[in-house]
Amino acid sequence: MQQFLKECKKVSREIATLKTDVKNKILNQMADALIEHCDFIVHNNSKDMQEAEKNNLSHDLKDRLFLDGTRVEAMAAAIRQIAAQKEPVGRTLEGWVTESGLNIQKVSIPIGVIGIIYESRPNVTSDTAALCFKSGNVCVLKGGKEAQHSNKAIADILRNVLAINKLPEQAISLLPDSSREGVANLIKQDKYVDLIVPRGGESLIRFISQNSSVPVIKHDKGICHTYIDKFADGKKALEICINAKCSRPGVCNSMETLLVHQEVANYVLPPLQEAFVYEQTELRGCKETQKYIDVNPASDEDFDTEYLANILSIKVVEDIHQAIDHINLHGSGHSECIISENYSNITRFLDEVDAACVYANASTRFTDGGAFGLGAEVGISTNKLHSRGPMGINDLTTFKYKILGNGQIR
Amino acid sequence: MQQFLKECKKVSREIATLKTDVKNKILNQMADALIEHCDFIVHNNSKDMQEAEKNNLSHDLKDRLFLDGTRVEAMAAAIRQIAAQKEPVGRTLEGWVTESGLNIQKVSIPIGVIGIIYESRPNVTSDTAALCFKSGNVCVLKGGKEAQHSNKAIADILRNVLAINKLPEQAISLLPDSSREGVANLIKQDKYVDLIVPRGGESLIRFISQNSSVPVIKHDKGICHTYIDKFADGKKALEICINAKCSRPGVCNSMETLLVHQEVANYVLPPLQEAFVYEQTELRGCKETQKYIDVNPASDEDFDTEYLANILSIKVVEDIHQAIDHINLHGSGHSECIISENYSNITRFLDEVDAACVYANASTRFTDGGAFGLGAEVGISTNKLHSRGPMGINDLTTFKYKILGNGQIR
Repeated sequence: MQQFLKECKKVSREIATLKTDVKNKILNQMADALIEHCDFIVHNNSKDMQEAEKNNLSHDLKDRLFLDGTRVEAMAAAIRQIAAQKEPVGRTLEGWVTESGLNIQKVSIPIGVIGIIYESRPNVTSDTAALCFKSGNVCVLKGGKEAQHSNKAIADILRNVLAINKLPEQAISLLPDSSREGVANLIKQDKYVDLIVPRGGESLIRFISQNSSVPVIKHDKGICHTYIDKFADGKKALEICINAKCSRPGVCNSMETLLVHQEVANYVLPPLQEAFVYEQTELRGCKETQKYIDVNPASDEDFDTEYLANILSIKVVEDIHQAIDHINLHGSGHSECIISENYSNITRFLDEVDAACVYANASTRFTDGGAFGLGAEVGISTNKLHSRGPMGINDLTTFKYKILGNGQIR
Repeated sequence: MQQFLKECKKVSREIATLKTDVKNKILNQMADALIEHCDFIVHNNSKDMQEAEKNNLSHDLKDRLFLDGTRVEAMAAAIRQIAAQKEPVGRTLEGWVTESGLNIQKVSIPIGVIGIIYESRPNVTSDTAALCFKSGNVCVLKGGKEAQHSNKAIADILRNVLAINKLPEQAISLLPDSSREGVANLIKQDKYVDLIVPRGGESLIRFISQNSSVPVIKHDKGICHTYIDKFADGKKALEICINAKCSRPGVCNSMETLLVHQEVANYVLPPLQEAFVYEQTELRGCKETQKYIDVNPASDEDFDTEYLANILSIKVVEDIHQAIDHINLHGSGHSECIISENYSNITRFLDEVDAACVYANASTRFTDGGAFGLGAEVGISTNKLHSRGPMGINDLTTFKYKILGNGQIR
């Protein structure tokens, strides 16, 4: 493993200096190759699907695993979109001249070697490989066991394009030892690995952040709130809440808890209940909520739960302060929303809520690389440092200071 | 400890929203208070000095520990300079409108609770406390045992100013349990602590980065190189090398290894030797170096050593590629310099050398918050992520996305 990662580190220096036109040409060739070898991918995917059948995976998981011609075409299209994005390396982020006459440029550079640990969906393999390559990084991919044949087929095709272009295949690597011990070993190799991005279950993420000596950017849970303020526009509130909860309940940016100002609960909750019943959403309310609508009681635990399902907990709050306090105590720092027409309340909420993305009058479902206009994403960072929210190619860079002098000494 | 840190986290929300004028007024009061209570500080410092005497600390360490009226005045002046700096919180770092009409603003915010672990110099206590306060963070300080009375006296004075202004004293905290177990406990409290900045010996830093579940920004060693290219200006080379090594050999941004292109070694090394002998620098050279000047042999180990002393290892290299490879293999990613008048070589060096600060024709000694024009610094980050190089108040912030909508759903 050490020898393998040492080689990755070495390769990362070569990949870091590739020119934009070379990278884009290769990315487009990768997209072509995926389509050309679509049958090979689908054939390997069917092996994973057979295993999934044998292991009685849920319908939802099988759907995430499944690949056909259309989905392979979508993977290729995503790579082309990544190729079309603006070069993330070499951007001057800041620049100034010091009193001593030094010209200091803060310039974006690739991070180096990035280990990415993820589950089920095989398109993550091609998306992530392309994002890392575009940003000049070497990726070490560790996908889920349930998708191993699909992931290997996709990686082999991409690596072959590198080889044809006389570039080291290790720029896109699969972790050689994909066992739990292999992961435990990977996250201790801070000499060779610059960043670990875990995307997966809570226990995996906890294990990695407790044990990694490599910096970690977590793609952790989203306990997202929407707060309907005293000064909310009722129509917006209704539309946004239904969208935030029901458009895709299984994803991290969907609403898990609704907070309602006590002075509007009477007007707002009944029509909301009606709309949620139509969407077959299970509602669980605090005691105060139950005064206005007939719902199951919410336990303390409910307010700390990421349902990832069509369930919503509801709490009536005394005022905006209580709403902000509740979010800062129970939220996961992902995406939080206020619905209000009041300038001071919106400003206060956006300033005081501690989260990566804070919204006024829009659905938290927009926390997404595509919806943000960043293109494809490596994940949604719930870290506080380096990257927060949707992680696009610019988030896969760090920086160096380039300092031009003409003989300055100190 | 948990209860204490939980309280710190709570306090951090209050400190994060303080207005600029309030923060600056308090910082200036802190500076006044240090001068007003100078005798109290000096008295407590003398207790530490007596201990130092008893424990036979080196002259150098005692000098770093010692405080008198002049040094206390300098501490106060540093706080005033920090107060005078531009507000680091609330800067719009980027902003755009998405296709869906969302107005996205990427805005700087405080990090939260920052644990800082440092040694000897008591002025770090006031510098760090002021930098964290200015950037809206709560600091948990863990200074060296040898400076405990001085650090407590300084912190007490600063905390008293907070109390007078009806702000929670915990905004500037000393770690209650300052034992090694206390530190081990602190770095596991990722629920309450957002960042750990260790400044100290290699073993402390290794312990923290191997065991912390809180993100760490290391202030690690500097094995800095200067490379004299084939196209170097000899006069600049001489002046920069002497400055980089001799102006202050004990600091992390001083040169430890000199690399010389083989085609100029003959011209460059003899006058350099003469100048270094005058500065009483001990020179250790590779075999090739020894052909040109009479110096002690350098072992393999020398090229991986941060001397922090008036010693220099010298290596003659075949070309710029070998110089870059040597630096990327042996450097610590701190500060590296090329001396050359050749455009292509300079560009190549600045692009390909993997370090926080890469210089053309200037001394690596400029890697410093003050010299960069950033004002005081929390340290020099040798991390690759979030912050690199001199860490000023802007590096003590992270960001959130504020998203203004008008009813958007997805």
